[in-house]
Amino acid sequence: MTQPIRYGMIGGGRDAFIGGVHRMAARLDDSMTLVAGALSSTPKKALASGLDLGLDSNRSYGTWNDMLVGESMLPESERMQCVVIVTPNNVHHAPAMAAMEAGFHVVCDKPMTCTNAEAQALVDTAKRTHRVFAVTYNYTGYPMVRQARDMVHAGSIGRVRKVFVEYLQGWLATPLEGDGQKQAHWRTDPTRAGAGGAMGDIGSHAENIMSFVTGLEVEQFCSDASAIVEGRAIDDDTAVLLRFAGGARGVLCASQVCVGHRNGLTLRVYGETGSLTWQQEHPDQLHVCSLEGHDTTLHRADAGLCEAAANATRLPGGHGEAFIEAFANIYRGAAAAMHADRDDGEAFGYQTAADGARGVRFINAVVDASGQGWTALEG
Amino acid sequence: MTQPIRYGMIGGGRDAFIGGVHRMAARLDDSMTLVAGALSSTPKKALASGLDLGLDSNRSYGTWNDMLVGESMLPESERMQCVVIVTPNNVHHAPAMAAMEAGFHVVCDKPMTCTNAEAQALVDTAKRTHRVFAVTYNYTGYPMVRQARDMVHAGSIGRVRKVFVEYLQGWLATPLEGDGQKQAHWRTDPTRAGAGGAMGDIGSHAENIMSFVTGLEVEQFCSDASAIVEGRAIDDDTAVLLRFAGGARGVLCASQVCVGHRNGLTLRVYGETGSLTWQQEHPDQLHVCSLEGHDTTLHRADAGLCEAAANATRLPGGHGEAFIEAFANIYRGAAAAMHADRDDGEAFGYQTAADGARGVRFINAVVDASGQGWTALEG
Amino acid sequence: MTQPIRYGMIGGGRDAFIGGVHRMAARLDDSMTLVAGALSSTPKKALASGLDLGLDSNRSYGTWNDMLVGESMLPESERMQCVVIVTPNNVHHAPAMAAMEAGFHVVCDKPMTCTNAEAQALVDTAKRTHRVFAVTYNYTGYPMVRQARDMVHAGSIGRVRKVFVEYLQGWLATPLEGDGQKQAHWRTDPTRAGAGGAMGDIGSHAENIMSFVTGLEVEQFCSDASAIVEGRAIDDDTAVLLRFAGGARGVLCASQVCVGHRNGLTLRVYGETGSLTWQQEHPDQLHVCSLEGHDTTLHRADAGLCEAAANATRLPGGHGEAFIEAFANIYRGAAAAMHADRDDGEAFGYQTAADGARGVRFINAVVDASGQGWTALEG
Amino acid sequence: MTQPIRYGMIGGGRDAFIGGVHRMAARLDDSMTLVAGALSSTPKKALASGLDLGLDSNRSYGTWNDMLVGESMLPESERMQCVVIVTPNNVHHAPAMAAMEAGFHVVCDKPMTCTNAEAQALVDTAKRTHRVFAVTYNYTGYPMVRQARDMVHAGSIGRVRKVFVEYLQGWLATPLEGDGQKQAHWRTDPTRAGAGGAMGDIGSHAENIMSFVTGLEVEQFCSDASAIVEGRAIDDDTAVLLRFAGGARGVLCASQVCVGHRNGLTLRVYGETGSLTWQQEHPDQLHVCSLEGHDTTLHRADAGLCEAAANATRLPGGHGEAFIEAFANIYRGAAAAMHADRDDGEAFGYQTAADGARGVRFINAVVDASGQGWTALEG
Repeated sequence: MTQPIRYGMIGGGRDAFIGGVHRMAARLDDSMTLVAGALSSTPKKALASGLDLGLDSNRSYGTWNDMLVGESMLPESERMQCVVIVTPNNVHHAPAMAAMEAGFHVVCDKPMTCTNAEAQALVDTAKRTHRVFAVTYNYTGYPMVRQARDMVHAGSIGRVRKVFVEYLQGWLATPLEGDGQKQAHWRTDPTRAGAGGAMGDIGSHAENIMSFVTGLEVEQFCSDASAIVEGRAIDDDTAVLLRFAGGARGVLCASQVCVGHRNGLTLRVYGETGSLTWQQEHPDQLHVCSLEGHDTTLHRADAGLCEAAANATRLPGGHGEAFIEAFANIYRGAAAAMHADRDDGEAFGYQTAADGARGVRFINAVVDASGQGWTALEG
Repeated sequence: MTQPIRYGMIGGGRDAFIGGVHRMAARLDDSMTLVAGALSSTPKKALASGLDLGLDSNRSYGTWNDMLVGESMLPESERMQCVVIVTPNNVHHAPAMAAMEAGFHVVCDKPMTCTNAEAQALVDTAKRTHRVFAVTYNYTGYPMVRQARDMVHAGSIGRVRKVFVEYLQGWLATPLEGDGQKQAHWRTDPTRAGAGGAMGDIGSHAENIMSFVTGLEVEQFCSDASAIVEGRAIDDDTAVLLRFAGGARGVLCASQVCVGHRNGLTLRVYGETGSLTWQQEHPDQLHVCSLEGHDTTLHRADAGLCEAAANATRLPGGHGEAFIEAFANIYRGAAAAMHADRDDGEAFGYQTAADGARGVRFINAVVDASGQGWTALEG
Repeated sequence: MTQPIRYGMIGGGRDAFIGGVHRMAARLDDSMTLVAGALSSTPKKALASGLDLGLDSNRSYGTWNDMLVGESMLPESERMQCVVIVTPNNVHHAPAMAAMEAGFHVVCDKPMTCTNAEAQALVDTAKRTHRVFAVTYNYTGYPMVRQARDMVHAGSIGRVRKVFVEYLQGWLATPLEGDGQKQAHWRTDPTRAGAGGAMGDIGSHAENIMSFVTGLEVEQFCSDASAIVEGRAIDDDTAVLLRFAGGARGVLCASQVCVGHRNGLTLRVYGETGSLTWQQEHPDQLHVCSLEGHDTTLHRADAGLCEAAANATRLPGGHGEAFIEAFANIYRGAAAAMHADRDDGEAFGYQTAADGARGVRFINAVVDASGQGWTALEG
Repeated sequence: MTQPIRYGMIGGGRDAFIGGVHRMAARLDDSMTLVAGALSSTPKKALASGLDLGLDSNRSYGTWNDMLVGESMLPESERMQCVVIVTPNNVHHAPAMAAMEAGFHVVCDKPMTCTNAEAQALVDTAKRTHRVFAVTYNYTGYPMVRQARDMVHAGSIGRVRKVFVEYLQGWLATPLEGDGQKQAHWRTDPTRAGAGGAMGDIGSHAENIMSFVTGLEVEQFCSDASAIVEGRAIDDDTAVLLRFAGGARGVLCASQVCVGHRNGLTLRVYGETGSLTWQQEHPDQLHVCSLEGHDTTLHRADAGLCEAAANATRLPGGHGEAFIEAFANIYRGAAAAMHADRDDGEAFGYQTAADGARGVRFINAVVDASGQGWTALEG
């Protein structure tokens, strides 16, 4: 059995949401094991959170810098091998840069950074330092998303003509950020979230899954990024028309004011000879239609699925896998890359700094050009 | 029992599709009865089609003009009272104008005309001649669409913020018009269909149901109307970003190249305190969510539905009503208006020439301004 | 064009439910036309109901006997050709016998009679008098039910091993019959409904659709017919284990106290190599699975459906057909048989007196043997 | 942070299915940690499997007896605290008895034993030795199943009248056991599986979830347990009519020959004033209907769910939890009971030896009395 990768977590202390998900995802398959933490920007809270998680008190650090320094002094066989960054978006770039320079691999939540320049710096640094850099676009971890990608690439639905991707939530339909709700607070604050609100938080996932599955490149777009809830400093509802290289068309929608939606990520891809539909809330199914009128549902763990889907599967059909399992597939891939010391997202099944940078550029472009008509997307 | 309205049909002969639907819809509730016809632009085919339908051979006319003349000479108690126009779009305006001038009411398929000027002429003429003019936007005939409208107007979901409406089909994913398929042929020919292809044929329904349910007025839009299938002279895939008076946002999509969709009309309306979803392929249900997290399905014939929904219902819940029944509700409304000699779509439950003209203006604007960025919609 | 069959209706006056459905079904395709009626057992109400429906007052009779006599005296070209019987179950046998003896064809609602002897008498009389006798097991009118049958008979799912059929409603979950609800009143009264309550009213449909689709014959059964609502004189919830000739097994459930169900008829058939599922509340779809794991949805009007399904279809896919259209398919078939003067349900697409008699025997056996363990079903 | 419970696994080596699920479930929340194993009845395979899992080679034992002995000699702070038994059914009783006698807690897969006497012995021994004994009826771990139970007990749907529970699979539709498929082989072999085939393997879950949610006690039943696939020594398709104490009725179906079903466990409960439906393949939803016609979907993590549901939830709504998470809830409960040294399934959220014994009695009774008509269930 391969030993789990030892990681230190930055962020993810008490009251955080996504840090706990990362920890479960790392643990599910014993891909990685938590050995250190700088769990909060408030040192006292960081230490308390470390206690909650059973961290050795020597390795529960008050700041991420302390953690990088402290861990570097430990023997190699004990020292953390990787940092996992689950802080607000504005605190991704600095620790990621420093971690790579200190020789650690990085797992970083999305969107990767606030600015395009910061994103590019991470791409360059990962390359120069030969570190593994995985961005947790977790929806690419679902077996049936991988199956969809494989089918598109294999030509099962012909040349892609049209893509609809939407990611709708309703939890920000009221000005929750004024009520001290921690998640709402930072996600609607442009100094911490970056320029994009709904667009950054969930539109980023929509862009990523669309690109992952179709491989299409956006050439031009026309966007409308709105703050629907009065007084909000950031978009909470964004829609984008897309024109892809090669002539395909698309529509991307991200909203956090669509009452009734929980985590409504849906991707629909229409090709010359078939179509694919995947819905995050029923992730074990992939709906496939053909020009001849066949209307079929593929299920996770079916015989005949592609290797990438089959390898991302733990249980027989009908025994549901869901969010944590998909997230764990990203961790499994990143850990394998770290064992191999090779930053190859394609081979190991995770999204790289380059994918993250493309996402950051897209978010910023969509928000910047809102209301301005058709705009070219700089590559 | 009220006597059925006597009608003469223009178009709808052999090989036609929608004419037969109109006849079933008229007959289902004995709202109207077919007494005359000019069923084809080819006189010989018109007569043969009349035989098929059991028309009195004296009243199966070779041209619509002959029908208007011939019927006008019959005694009032026998003469047709209304014309039903189910020809290609370019043959709506002339017979409708002539019919009203000759004293007949009109039921006209959508889109009402090809040009804005023709549309306005029909509005003006209906007003001047005091004729009933019903445009068969049949999706407004569904009880649960009427329920949705009532709920929006009653404030059940608060002020509307966001609307998604899409109407997706796949039947034109190949260049069917080149294979002599009659329906494909005229619907992709701008001289007969008008400027809009998918936009005119089904986007028109999407605009109508959106407007009917929400009452919102489009102020600005940004559109992308594409001919995806090579060589097609008209859009087969259109997407539009919408900005409504009062600040709400919307996205409207119409496509006939989305493989796997049969008749995929879906309307989603998000308000400050709730949301509504209706899907044409499961028309007896209306999905309602509230800010508090309630997630409810209303069913046709439920106790507590609005009067407009209740009156449009024939069967108990679970005993499905569908396309023909909804279409028949339009006929029922139009017939009642004719009996009352009062062109009041609101009171009787049909869409008027004014609704039809708004639709024509929208189609033409969306197609004309495609690719040009944000554009104001002229009222 | 074939002329519609002229019919006289027995029952179906004011406050009735199913009579109106029959009239719409007859009218939808101009299969039959109402010319006479004995619309209520109360002569005054019969006449008033005739006025409602626009019947010629000479042909709105006070009793069904008057109608048979009166119509027989009219010239053949004017006289009704068929009676449609939509009375409570105890008033099916007598008018049906008399009508056939008087030379009229019969359309009769289900269950056909209260007793096995009465049922057999109708079978014998239909044969002797050469009259068409159609029992309105309307669920056999759905195109996708016909497709299911065709697939089973063609061996598409291999030898049938297991059948689940359930018909669940909730409207009798309270003692509605005590509140003067007319429909509840007679349907829970054994003197009018026969021995079966839920079993007779809807279990009869369940038995019929199961037999229609699978062709299996029940050899033995074990039943539990209960009156769940206190004081009810008749079963409102029945479950039956079935053993078919050839070894297949089945479960049939009928209940009218299952709160939340509207008209929940579902048939599931499992064969050696595949399975079929059809749900009445989504009637345009047939779900098909294969041993190899394919999970497919067939849609009404798809290319490649069997002839019986294709012929029972009016609209393109996605333009829903539902309850009335399926009911109209039965009328279309019965009318065709009457034009041909040939009582062949197989050829023309309706259920015959023999099918009705099998249903009556099944209902009575299930209710009689409730709680008694395994019982042989007499053929 | 509470330390994970240290466990030793019996069974679950290479080629096993459910052992790996137990390990993921134990690990997801750090409820338990694997420290020892007797992973196969073949000592060599046991050791190899231990290597796969990274077990200390000293603690990878050749037999379960060796493990009990070996672990008992370790210092208390190091020694395993619990055994997890994931062997075929005939190898549950002996190690469970010995483990309790040696002072270890037990987690045991279902069905608990093959015979009623063995089951009772485990109940008695757990009581006498004061050990925690948890049977992994994992479906009781789903938050929405716990919500259903809470609602029934709180009277939300009134007195229960009718229950449908079905557990349908298709994987044994062919004689797979003849092809060397390990899972099929032992599950269809009565010497290892016990008297029940489909009934033991999955009917046991159906009985358990039904009892867990409704609290009803079976008084009488009538069953039909069949071996549909030729040559099979055990039932692969079973249906049971149920009469509960207090008058409610039920139908339980378990089949492994229903082609097209993956893991189709569905529970439907109908009360006097409402109903509940839960489907294992969409586990985050609970469908609730009321007598007044409200038709509502509750979602995991909704505000207002019961404490048992809320406590069993890790992620926000729409971020799916599924099979492993539910299984982990059982582990979390059992671990908490072990920390408290108190065998109280009700308080800690797991099914006890008493629940397991009731299940074993039900399976054996249903199979024994198949085809014999109504039979009383001995308590």
